[in-house]
Amino acid sequence: MARIVMKFGGTSVGSVERIQAVARRVAEEVEAGNQVAVVVSAMSGETNRLFGLCRDVAPMHDAREYDVVVSTGEQVTIGLLSIALQSLGVEARSWMGWQLPVLTDVAHGRARILDINTETLIERMEQGQVAVVAGFQGLGQTDNRVTTLGRGGSDTSAVALAAALMADRCDIYTDVQGVYTTDPRIVPKARKLDRITYEEMLEMASLGAKVLQTRSVEMAMKHGVRVQVRHSWPEYWTIPGTLVCGEDEIVEKEIVSGITYSRDEAKVTLAKVSDLPGVAARIFGPLADGNINVDMIVQNVSEDGQSTDLTFTVPTGDLDKAVKLLEERRDELGYKALTATDGVVKVSVIGVGMRSHAGVAQTMFKALADRGINIQVITTSEIKISVLIAEEYTELAVRALHSAYGLDAA
Amino acid sequence: MARIVMKFGGTSVGSVERIQAVARRVAEEVEAGNQVAVVVSAMSGETNRLFGLCRDVAPMHDAREYDVVVSTGEQVTIGLLSIALQSLGVEARSWMGWQLPVLTDVAHGRARILDINTETLIERMEQGQVAVVAGFQGLGQTDNRVTTLGRGGSDTSAVALAAALMADRCDIYTDVQGVYTTDPRIVPKARKLDRITYEEMLEMASLGAKVLQTRSVEMAMKHGVRVQVRHSWPEYWTIPGTLVCGEDEIVEKEIVSGITYSRDEAKVTLAKVSDLPGVAARIFGPLADGNINVDMIVQNVSEDGQSTDLTFTVPTGDLDKAVKLLEERRDELGYKALTATDGVVKVSVIGVGMRSHAGVAQTMFKALADRGINIQVITTSEIKISVLIAEEYTELAVRALHSAYGLDAA
Repeated sequence: MARIVMKFGGTSVGSVERIQAVARRVAEEVEAGNQVAVVVSAMSGETNRLFGLCRDVAPMHDAREYDVVVSTGEQVTIGLLSIALQSLGVEARSWMGWQLPVLTDVAHGRARILDINTETLIERMEQGQVAVVAGFQGLGQTDNRVTTLGRGGSDTSAVALAAALMADRCDIYTDVQGVYTTDPRIVPKARKLDRITYEEMLEMASLGAKVLQTRSVEMAMKHGVRVQVRHSWPEYWTIPGTLVCGEDEIVEKEIVSGITYSRDEAKVTLAKVSDLPGVAARIFGPLADGNINVDMIVQNVSEDGQSTDLTFTVPTGDLDKAVKLLEERRDELGYKALTATDGVVKVSVIGVGMRSHAGVAQTMFKALADRGINIQVITTSEIKISVLIAEEYTELAVRALHSAYGLDAA
Repeated sequence: MARIVMKFGGTSVGSVERIQAVARRVAEEVEAGNQVAVVVSAMSGETNRLFGLCRDVAPMHDAREYDVVVSTGEQVTIGLLSIALQSLGVEARSWMGWQLPVLTDVAHGRARILDINTETLIERMEQGQVAVVAGFQGLGQTDNRVTTLGRGGSDTSAVALAAALMADRCDIYTDVQGVYTTDPRIVPKARKLDRITYEEMLEMASLGAKVLQTRSVEMAMKHGVRVQVRHSWPEYWTIPGTLVCGEDEIVEKEIVSGITYSRDEAKVTLAKVSDLPGVAARIFGPLADGNINVDMIVQNVSEDGQSTDLTFTVPTGDLDKAVKLLEERRDELGYKALTATDGVVKVSVIGVGMRSHAGVAQTMFKALADRGINIQVITTSEIKISVLIAEEYTELAVRALHSAYGLDAA
């Protein structure tokens, strides 16, 4: 017997038939003797429809009222899934955020969970009742109003509930079979990982593998919640998916677990910037004030000792704004030339194993050099090496690295 | 300055444009210096759509989960209307049933309001904030779950809120201009009434004038809430509609205020029933047990002193069931013949003035007799005289009575 949390996203509950299928999957876990809480999203399309209504009434609107409107999406799903479970003979009841309550701060539209009261829930689950909990929503601690967690918040709801329930597992049912070594659309030989550490998953998530919300992984890591990513379609129910867990649960650590890429990168180079103390602050200050997130930064050694070349990346959508801000300050910053391009991609290799292995970076550089791919910028962290290359080499680079680190499926 | 409750039904808030129009009407009342609470229904079609989802998941479903799903309709409207009001510069906030709370019993799907806590609401209204309250929903007193009041419950929500707020007026915005002396589709000279008593309105409502829910009128009468029925379209905002109020507020009482008709009547006659004590109980007991609502009853004086003819009416939809029940008990009841027909209509004249005026019934009988209309059954109450006639005479009878009581517009 285990206590588990199961989470189903919008497409998994996107129709009456899908909701009935979800109920059958939940019933299987109940029949296997487990205590079950289910967290669900709004039916696919509903959140957008509700947001559209708010926007049509007034483009700028009170986030508190937006939360009142948008939170109804999950409310409908919990009622329908409870009905579907009951019709299979499974005892179930729905819980809205305010009923438990799921206490959050009052940052409406992007609230953070502070605490979940699970006393009644545990009592009922021990008696065999399935708890069907609305994801994405909570109750503002100081204003007693409905809050929402922001897009993708249902993953976070599920992990937070699993932590509060001290659940043995949190199963996230989604539209992929698990976490892959890289994008299978680029590398057909990509392998599904059986296990991946929280740290690796965080790097994967923030680099573009859109399987789990970053915040939900952070929360899982903080509370040690074992998260199982699984496919929600009945034909995949027997496939275990990928377990996101602590390093201690992974016996055979791979040096590199995955290769990711992000096309949402644009490169800016400032040539011959005065090499004086404080110049970096003068450059990046205005960008930070403009809410532009600077990612990779590299500063070349100056030849004359008086000037330097500075290269950095920003999200593609912020490129024009960044260029404008820097051109406005050209005199103040004292650079000779500004060049900008969005024809670049960031490719990363990720793996906790690289902490204890030398030569990981060298393998990457050699694999790219062998294919004539020029590296423009390099950044590294404890478990990640990222390079910026010309966008047209994306697929070639990802495939080369996937092979070089021995990740190709047999 | 007055404290008022404004209620808008589903068609009045059926689109973004309609919601914006409602916001403008509310803003007018605020600008006039009034304290305002608004009660709204779900956008038209929403309740049916949500009910359809429940039914598609399982035809027989838990009323508590049905309430969770269906109550989202009103929740969406209160959020959107609050946004619309704010965009006009009117301070407003939404309130769900559980937030005030609107306490109800736990008869889910058809709950009754027990109490409304208005402390915070009054505080905010006195500070100029418009309270936008979800109609049709409440919080179950003993189970702490969302309840709904049953179809048309938003009228009841509005009147109950007006009572709890001790409001000066409860304005029910609907798709008619007010209460008419009779159905304008039958009598083009029908007049809109400026005022009507609760008692008359109850008779009108239960006899088929579908302007206000019967329960809401009962509640208004019990608590002395002045209810103004008004049209929700902007072009009618300057027209005052009809005030439903106590008799003391009506100075010039008409003898007869309205003529109504109901086609939902079927007639059953039992010929030569043994005229013994207890026979009526033996006949009507099984009908009551079968949930058949018997309306008009007339028992003829027996000629031989040993048998009698008994005629009564039931709703058209229950006729077959009633006949079956009575035929099964033919021996026990000891009647000679049973005849049944649904080709009848009940026409009623209603007016509190008839209490103090003689000859009101005589005017009715003469008007019908003059047109050769045969009266099959007569029943009377303090403020109503009803007759059962053949259905084909409906329009003729209603027009004749409308003229006979001087109700025709000039």
